[in-house]
Amino acid sequence: MAAPQKKRTTKNAQSMAKGQREISISEFFTKNRHLLGFDSPVKALLTTIKEAVDNSLDACEEAGIPPRLLVEIRPDVPVNLGIELSSQESKPKNGNGNGKSSKEDRFKIIIEDNGPGIVKAQIPKIFGKLLYGSKFHSLKQSRGQQGIGISAAGMYGQLTTGQPVVIYSRTGANEPAHRFKIKLDLKKNEPTILEGDETIWEKEHGTRIEITLTGSYKRGQHSVDNYLEHTSIANPHLHLTYINPKGEESLYPNSTQELPTEPHEIKPHPYGVELGILARMLEDTKSRNITGFMKDEFCRVGAKTCENILTEAGIPPRRHPRRLQQADIQNLLDAIAVTKIAAPPTDCLSPIGEELVMAGLKSGVEADFYTSVTRPAAVYRGNPFQIEVGIAFGGKLPGDELAKVMRFANRVPLLYQASACGIHKSVLGASWRNYGVQQSKGALPTAPMVVLIHMASVWVPFTSESKEAVAHYPEIIKEMTLALQEAGRKLKRHINKRAREKDALKKQSYIQKYIPHIGEALQEILGIEDAEREEVIATLTDTLERSRKL
Amino acid sequence: MAAPQKKRTTKNAQSMAKGQREISISEFFTKNRHLLGFDSPVKALLTTIKEAVDNSLDACEEAGIPPRLLVEIRPDVPVNLGIELSSQESKPKNGNGNGKSSKEDRFKIIIEDNGPGIVKAQIPKIFGKLLYGSKFHSLKQSRGQQGIGISAAGMYGQLTTGQPVVIYSRTGANEPAHRFKIKLDLKKNEPTILEGDETIWEKEHGTRIEITLTGSYKRGQHSVDNYLEHTSIANPHLHLTYINPKGEESLYPNSTQELPTEPHEIKPHPYGVELGILARMLEDTKSRNITGFMKDEFCRVGAKTCENILTEAGIPPRRHPRRLQQADIQNLLDAIAVTKIAAPPTDCLSPIGEELVMAGLKSGVEADFYTSVTRPAAVYRGNPFQIEVGIAFGGKLPGDELAKVMRFANRVPLLYQASACGIHKSVLGASWRNYGVQQSKGALPTAPMVVLIHMASVWVPFTSESKEAVAHYPEIIKEMTLALQEAGRKLKRHINKRAREKDALKKQSYIQKYIPHIGEALQEILGIEDAEREEVIATLTDTLERSRKL
Repeated sequence: MAAPQKKRTTKNAQSMAKGQREISISEFFTKNRHLLGFDSPVKALLTTIKEAVDNSLDACEEAGIPPRLLVEIRPDVPVNLGIELSSQESKPKNGNGNGKSSKEDRFKIIIEDNGPGIVKAQIPKIFGKLLYGSKFHSLKQSRGQQGIGISAAGMYGQLTTGQPVVIYSRTGANEPAHRFKIKLDLKKNEPTILEGDETIWEKEHGTRIEITLTGSYKRGQHSVDNYLEHTSIANPHLHLTYINPKGEESLYPNSTQELPTEPHEIKPHPYGVELGILARMLEDTKSRNITGFMKDEFCRVGAKTCENILTEAGIPPRRHPRRLQQADIQNLLDAIAVTKIAAPPTDCLSPIGEELVMAGLKSGVEADFYTSVTRPAAVYRGNPFQIEVGIAFGGKLPGDELAKVMRFANRVPLLYQASACGIHKSVLGASWRNYGVQQSKGALPTAPMVVLIHMASVWVPFTSESKEAVAHYPEIIKEMTLALQEAGRKLKRHINKRAREKDALKKQSYIQKYIPHIGEALQEILGIEDAEREEVIATLTDTLERSRKL
Repeated sequence: MAAPQKKRTTKNAQSMAKGQREISISEFFTKNRHLLGFDSPVKALLTTIKEAVDNSLDACEEAGIPPRLLVEIRPDVPVNLGIELSSQESKPKNGNGNGKSSKEDRFKIIIEDNGPGIVKAQIPKIFGKLLYGSKFHSLKQSRGQQGIGISAAGMYGQLTTGQPVVIYSRTGANEPAHRFKIKLDLKKNEPTILEGDETIWEKEHGTRIEITLTGSYKRGQHSVDNYLEHTSIANPHLHLTYINPKGEESLYPNSTQELPTEPHEIKPHPYGVELGILARMLEDTKSRNITGFMKDEFCRVGAKTCENILTEAGIPPRRHPRRLQQADIQNLLDAIAVTKIAAPPTDCLSPIGEELVMAGLKSGVEADFYTSVTRPAAVYRGNPFQIEVGIAFGGKLPGDELAKVMRFANRVPLLYQASACGIHKSVLGASWRNYGVQQSKGALPTAPMVVLIHMASVWVPFTSESKEAVAHYPEIIKEMTLALQEAGRKLKRHINKRAREKDALKKQSYIQKYIPHIGEALQEILGIEDAEREEVIATLTDTLERSRKL
């Protein structure tokens, strides 16, 4: 099996040094596109739509506009060979024949919103540069967070079809609309603007994106259709029109005009800061003394707390931040750790809420029991987060299959990489047998059940840039477990009640059988009339009925 | 539960534009450190050692040097407060008291090799810049591939302890040794050199790295000890000395002097190229005609193949690469797809081999049946890869627990994120019941069994930068499944044979019981001597014995 051994090409440090070079972030993600969610044609289609929808919803909410979105997947035929054609004999073959497969898989994805639009100067970088955005440095709940997604979708389109991203944007009725065609320079991670002119657009404000890519459209669990349906469950304020590749239009109207509670940006909490970060903050700050620094750069540090920390650390309150030495910084950190500081504010979060979680489940799943739990906010590495759980049980759900888990992070449905996800892990780890539900070792519970979990946070720690699964931070798993336990206990009460009801029903029907005989026996013994006998039977039946209800 | 609704801070495109900005790759990974394997103190320790060991092994093998490594985890006490001390009353508390927890968790990690060393000019970037390396653009099997790992480990040390990375390196007996102290500028992703002088080092050639970090040392499945043990299983040429935080020294001697087959760099295969990449290659090439381009830039494209492709595409063979239009490029790609091209060469791979996989399993696992399979090389997205499977079964392995899965990628053990891994998925998906092994729905098989899977490739598609799990490419899962089936059939034969043996043994002991009686009966009927009777009994027993062996 082994190949014949070739002579070793012995290398040394000098020859090895020649190979060393810088890798641009766009080269890195071109090769590692699966990290961004582009590892299969089906997924590429979904990821592109997901990134665009995330951005549209974030922008609309931030601008206080009830979102109205259009999502369209249009089959696309490659532009046919132009003037600059070679005059070979094989020419007739071009544009048909082997082009078939590529034609079938080629789509133009269109996402249009009624959001605030994007100012002209920002358009090229937002769509033509990876790692560019506004949400990375801001501590509040949003769908997007890293400034990669939409430019990566454009890059994928460019890689697979050579087509640029087309963007229409207008920021208001008195402003001109713009139309851009943008490519991403794969070596430099910089936008190349092919066109960027004013244009006529009937919309007063909004953004429209067109990305041409090769992908594959399928129905089922991982489909765009499924994603959009789940999105409308978690975002009842969204009005969505969806046109699939067959041209069929689906409408998901908004069920409320009210936007979700607006999350407010917070400052980092002292408990989440680390030595290296603290050192950098001290370097960068505009504050001219350590007291001002602590109060300005962190949340929940007032005059008293600050004094406690600095006394504990042995640092004079007027010391200039840049005069702190390594050892001082360590002391400051140690002092923070032993000082009682209030938990971070939670108005940076916007959970769905118990009622809407339940309503969402009811609209999407036919069952005969529903429950939901919204946990109070908790903190991991200084980041506030909040867990919500919903359970649907029984009804028409199949009883002999593994339970279904619906995962959401900041209102975005997660469809892929279930088994890598902290949410999945927490459902696996809950002791379902305690709640009357079957479960084999190492598997999901087997029951007619759907479990919904939503994590809302200022920073969701995803296991990869494609944002498909939540990382296994112990604090997060713990909160999920607590929420599942709370919901599980409610479920148990329901299951027990059902069992008791079934039992009582059995007993009742047993007694019911004898009531007429009792009536006849009484008639015989007491010599009462037929009418009286019927009355006795009715009374007994009635008593039985009432006792059951108690 | 809902917080009182605050007034909306309505934003528009202009105010939103102000928040937009570039995110450096080091800022990105500081916040997303779990993507690099630094999401918990236990894992941080392991990841740091893993990245350094990977680099050492790659360098030694590339230079043709049998690797001798030292790995040491030394408890580290923070440098005590220097001269620049504040004179607060609380001073006595510093350096003890609340410092306790940080002391326990602080380690100096030392990894020293006898490799070729690193030339002076390259040291700062290799250790102080993310996305810098030699392996990213090279198509051959190596442990490292992205140029992130070791600088990320240094960055983590810096973040948690403020300490720089210390590097000793020497490239030969006639060269001076160098000692560097390096930090990573978190905002710019550039190295900051704190020291970089010549020094005295007794080693003729090699590299030594010291990283101080906070971490947590634990034994068990995810431990450094376990990782090093698995590493020595997959790398029998490695001589390793390991000193744990208690100062206990373990030795893993090499079991062979021979280095693994040297993998050779290949060019990309035409089947793996995409429109966008092809367009860029045409732009960048030094070839002045398309024929030269195809033959120089790809593997397996000879004169005949090239002619076939170009004829099919309708492109004149002397056309300048940069004169191809979008439509030509699409035609070229379509032509490649319908042209028969030989599979890429596989000397870019260096599998462990069936014998060594089996030997490795035997050295690490006590069982009574072992088998191994090395599949022929296959290709995903133009990248050659090869799957190897080993199974150990029975013996002292626990029969009522889920089977253990040992995962390797390019000879590196993967300890975390099992459930996210394509390897795990392929083991879950194999029909173990067909091979006589129990398996519940959705779970690993329940059996006294260890399954080892190794993927060797020029580019392992990991699910995250921390390289803990293999992405679910269908071609890869398919190869794993085929390898598991082949090994599974061998296992089945063993299990069946065992069952037959057990059965035969039962029958034999049954017959054995009657042999003396047959002897006696014959003696009575034929009137033979006692000696003859004994002879008959012996012959019958012997026959029985022989029939069983058949």
